[in-house]
Amino acid sequence: MECLGCKLANKKEKVFIVYENDYVCCILDHIPFNEGHVLILPKQHFHDVDELDSLNANAIMIASILITKAIKEIFNPDGITINQNNGMFNELKHYHLHVVPRYQKQNFASFYAEYDGVNIEADCALANTQSKLVVAIKNIIGREKDENNNREH
Amino acid sequence: MECLGCKLANKKEKVFIVYENDYVCCILDHIPFNEGHVLILPKQHFHDVDELDSLNANAIMIASILITKAIKEIFNPDGITINQNNGMFNELKHYHLHVVPRYQKQNFASFYAEYDGVNIEADCALANTQSKLVVAIKNIIGREKDENNNREH
Repeated sequence: MECLGCKLANKKEKVFIVYENDYVCCILDHIPFNEGHVLILPKQHFHDVDELDSLNANAIMIASILITKAIKEIFNPDGITINQNNGMFNELKHYHLHVVPRYQKQNFASFYAEYDGVNIEADCALANTQSKLVVAIKNIIGREKDENNNREH
Repeated sequence: MECLGCKLANKKEKVFIVYENDYVCCILDHIPFNEGHVLILPKQHFHDVDELDSLNANAIMIASILITKAIKEIFNPDGITINQNNGMFNELKHYHLHVVPRYQKQNFASFYAEYDGVNIEADCALANTQSKLVVAIKNIIGREKDENNNREH
């Protein structure tokens, strides 16, 4: 397992997981554009989106919806941008989907500016964000289960 | 049907469709970042990603894979960025996923610069791109059907 993305997705490196299932691992970006910036990684190795099988593709999309709901609940941003780079623009060389809370007066173009390596978030801040998201996600999953059960009865 | 996105997705406005099915309509962006820049819109009205039901979510993800394959086949870009803006950053006010071919020396930050309204692509250029993508997508769907049949036998 040489790939850093594989290591992150399978907890062989230190990661702040906010949600995981059999297919995906959702972790905090350690250089967040804003607090709550999450990366969704498949546990299996894929580079580009067109390599994904339908089970992984679907799991990633459904996870992005769940993470979006949780970010809205906690941070109430002006919007959320979902973003994924393929080919030479996939710097991790492992498929990863960014879910990024955004605010009105920020210039998002800087998301694509060169990385200067100075904005690494402190572990304690990441741990704090992690707890907030983990609780929100558990609540959302619980609520949706209840709603589905109510619909069935 | 007041929403422009609904009109585009349901062919009530002039659009250059490269692929459609029961759920999604994939059209050329008329202000392409590069040739082959496609928008995937659900035919049903949704604003943000977290409003999508699982059928639409899945259809959008699978369409993004198909469009990515076709763009690679025709344009062989250095990479493809897939991007979707929610909340106040969703200018169309109808869910739409950008699939954008990119080349090494372009600054993608400009994708997020203010729209100056001068880069609208000529219809003949869009029609030309459309034919290339339509053919590639039909071929990909045909090949994948054959591969699935071969696996089953």
